Amino acid sequence: MTPFHTDTHMTPHQPGFSGGHLDRADHLRADDAALYALRLDPRARVLSLVGFDPFLTAEGTLAWGPVNTLDPDAVLILLGLLDGSAHFVVLHEQPNEAPLFRSPRVMEVLSVLGPQDMAIYGAARSLLDWHGRHRFCGRCGGATKAHKAGWGRRCTVCESEHFPRVDPVVIMLAEHGGRALVGRQASWPPGRYSALAGFLEPGETMEEAVARELFEEAGVRATRVRYVTSQPWPFPAQLMLACVAEVQSDALRIATEEIEDAIWVSRDDVKAALAGEPEAKFLAPPRYAVAYTLLRHWAET
Amino acid sequence: MTPFHTDTHMTPHQPGFSGGHLDRADHLRADDAALYALRLDPRARVLSLVGFDPFLTAEGTLAWGPVNTLDPDAVLILLGLLDGSAHFVVLHEQPNEAPLFRSPRVMEVLSVLGPQDMAIYGAARSLLDWHGRHRFCGRCGGATKAHKAGWGRRCTVCESEHFPRVDPVVIMLAEHGGRALVGRQASWPPGRYSALAGFLEPGETMEEAVARELFEEAGVRATRVRYVTSQPWPFPAQLMLACVAEVQSDALRIATEEIEDAIWVSRDDVKAALAGEPEAKFLAPPRYAVAYTLLRHWAET
Repeated sequence: MTPFHTDTHMTPHQPGFSGGHLDRADHLRADDAALYALRLDPRARVLSLVGFDPFLTAEGTLAWGPVNTLDPDAVLILLGLLDGSAHFVVLHEQPNEAPLFRSPRVMEVLSVLGPQDMAIYGAARSLLDWHGRHRFCGRCGGATKAHKAGWGRRCTVCESEHFPRVDPVVIMLAEHGGRALVGRQASWPPGRYSALAGFLEPGETMEEAVARELFEEAGVRATRVRYVTSQPWPFPAQLMLACVAEVQSDALRIATEEIEDAIWVSRDDVKAALAGEPEAKFLAPPRYAVAYTLLRHWAET
Repeated sequence: MTPFHTDTHMTPHQPGFSGGHLDRADHLRADDAALYALRLDPRARVLSLVGFDPFLTAEGTLAWGPVNTLDPDAVLILLGLLDGSAHFVVLHEQPNEAPLFRSPRVMEVLSVLGPQDMAIYGAARSLLDWHGRHRFCGRCGGATKAHKAGWGRRCTVCESEHFPRVDPVVIMLAEHGGRALVGRQASWPPGRYSALAGFLEPGETMEEAVARELFEEAGVRATRVRYVTSQPWPFPAQLMLACVAEVQSDALRIATEEIEDAIWVSRDDVKAALAGEPEAKFLAPPRYAVAYTLLRHWAET
């Protein structure tokens, strides 16, 4: 694909896990003859993984192996094309496999990768996780089977079709009197604060979900919501929708079963935190988190 | 909830299926004692349906019945609270039930409803549909059972938890030289044109999904994407993310397996279509569709 830019005024920093440069080639997914030819092409590549974590080259990039050394019956997911050559990941169909927990080292490994590699790995991981959670049909309980180059599963009993899942999540800064609201969960590293967030529910707009979550978690009432940017988050497959919400008052009522603490911070506080200054009021989220992008956007505007 | 406004500069028209005024009361969903008390309260109400379509009062509003006439074993989904009284919908747990097809009359019935009623019905319908599609566990094939007041299901075998699904969809106008791109599907009423749209995939930002869909369906390359508004669409449960995308050129390459036709229209063309003028260049989408909101936003800015 031609390099594509979001509104750079709105998005000063490219969110982590975005910017993948593979052409997803949707039109080939149901074309068995074309897929067969792509797979036989000696330029075809398969993503190297260690468990579900990326295997890195000495240069710190994703490692890709040749497809022609794989078992011919291996089930492959088509991640996309690059200069005409297909890039795949192997789908191991193991019923009742343990869920895909995030390994302690994956975020460390990912922080070495460039943005395009991070995006490609993220998409691959979301797809593998989805297959593992959909080996059986939710409607009838029958076994399902991958098809469409790994972009769907069909029930072998009732023939229902299932498609890869993405869960929208709203993540937002409440804003009042020139300050922004950041919160923390008890499980986070000491001093770390970030934007509040929550899953969007059926029947809500993005703006309504932002308002509901801010009221539930911090007791603040949104009056106006602005969208800033979005990010695919691969643990397992969220669409992070990052917003800033003006709120009526800075009086907080913190839902301690959801967050441990929330504090109002100034633009200077945020800049110091993003710069990693030792005297900063809080420890910023990591650069690959969309909360980092959101805080940076807010601090700079 | 306090009335909540999205950015009115950005959203001149409230999208259909948004603006529900029930308090979702998330904190009560796992509180069995509170739910039991709410259900016994004589003010508790249950949504009246005909099949899965809304049953309307003579005034054209949603009809609600008393909860205390229901079978005490009926499974209820908590839609939310209004002035302290719980509003529910009954979940009929029928394994292998036929999928929830959209009845020919439902859109007609819905067009009579006010925005709040439309939003409440939309959320209820999305939830009922989700339960029907998740009676079995995707991971192990075991039977699942509703819990958390209908906001989750748990597998009776492996204890996996499942949550209501929302699928993000991008819907967008390409923009070039003061004109916008609208397309049509062969199944639509004659003359109807609307915004192009498609499901967002794992590993994509909203902006990347907009660019991919525009290129796949119409061969145009997005250079800048602006978010406009969002809508929950209840057939069965999409989050519609409406955008305008500047594109490099107005040369089209239409994917006829996806859309039948696409045309460039001016602001005056759109205004005439939205006004329903007989000489208009195309027939506009219905008012409850977010494409209507998007076209109106674009024509007025």
